[in-house]
Amino acid sequence: MRVSALVERTGVPLATVKYYLREGLLQPGIPTGATQARYTEDHVHRLQVIKALTSAAGLPLHKVKVVLHLIDDPGSDLYSALGQAVASLPPYRAGAAAEHPRARTLLERIGQLYDPGYAATAQLEHALEAAEEAGVGMSDERFEVYARHIRAIAEYDLQRMGASDLSPIEYAVLGTALSEPVLLAMRRLAHQDIAAKRLGNPAD
Amino acid sequence: MRVSALVERTGVPLATVKYYLREGLLQPGIPTGATQARYTEDHVHRLQVIKALTSAAGLPLHKVKVVLHLIDDPGSDLYSALGQAVASLPPYRAGAAAEHPRARTLLERIGQLYDPGYAATAQLEHALEAAEEAGVGMSDERFEVYARHIRAIAEYDLQRMGASDLSPIEYAVLGTALSEPVLLAMRRLAHQDIAAKRLGNPAD
Repeated sequence: MRVSALVERTGVPLATVKYYLREGLLQPGIPTGATQARYTEDHVHRLQVIKALTSAAGLPLHKVKVVLHLIDDPGSDLYSALGQAVASLPPYRAGAAAEHPRARTLLERIGQLYDPGYAATAQLEHALEAAEEAGVGMSDERFEVYARHIRAIAEYDLQRMGASDLSPIEYAVLGTALSEPVLLAMRRLAHQDIAAKRLGNPAD
Repeated sequence: MRVSALVERTGVPLATVKYYLREGLLQPGIPTGATQARYTEDHVHRLQVIKALTSAAGLPLHKVKVVLHLIDDPGSDLYSALGQAVASLPPYRAGAAAEHPRARTLLERIGQLYDPGYAATAQLEHALEAAEEAGVGMSDERFEVYARHIRAIAEYDLQRMGASDLSPIEYAVLGTALSEPVLLAMRRLAHQDIAAKRLGNPAD
């Protein structure tokens, strides 16, 4: 297809497509003349991934580059590549790896790997601290209930990784970023549904 | 306590405390002289709630006012007050209530209340649409697995509402906003833990 069709198919503006080509985020088309090139379904897919990372997941361009590089070349250690790719997603916590005492206590309690250098560990520590300061700190019981159900969701996610058309890195990054807002909206709606049944919904 | 102690206890700067007093977000202290007043534990608590809403939950001040008003006067319909309070939390979706076909189909499938006017319904629709566009759309099976476990978490949340020192509105708003980042970090860590066990962690 020509570049105009690529723009049409993906909704990414021409100037942006040209910018991605210059920056090497999008592989060049197959030249069909001095100023023209032909593009394939691979280009469509790549643009959709970039679009999802920038607009839906909110990644800055330098983080998009990290993720695309890992998609193109995950290397021989898939575990480490997956970790690096997911660590490229927001929220970003500045600062070097430190100790995360709240996260450590709770993770060790449920028998889960504690790695202070992993981005999500700092994210958990920060979230636990903010909740504690607001007076809605995480009790051991609450953490255990949450952990059991979150783990079941995570098990399902990894089970389905092989069944996806996406590469493992694409699946992990897009699946993490794009299902997080779904899960949060679902929890708020479940609260509403349960409250309606317990407190009585005047609309009924 | 004097206003200086209030500042010390809460970490909220004096200028901000004065601003909240002027705006009526913080109830006045008990006058002890022409220019002095005494403050109580209720003032400390109120400032902690405001701080959590603004900094941890990221609410703009006009939304904080809505929540505080509902805390002070939830009225006789607690279900409706809880819904309004949680709807004051980000993310904010502009636009009037419309139909939300993806959310409707999935919610009806799991036998859950579908209310197009509820903020979280628009939030779910938007999240489902973004996931679909990114090629990680929600299958019926995935939605059912997520819904089962998210509901169990939500059931626990509501069960514990009565045991909290907070008022129902405070518990709902702070509990929703502050445990969301905890849940997301937990899922990323569960992914890592499961992947380490399946793919082999070279650190072991």
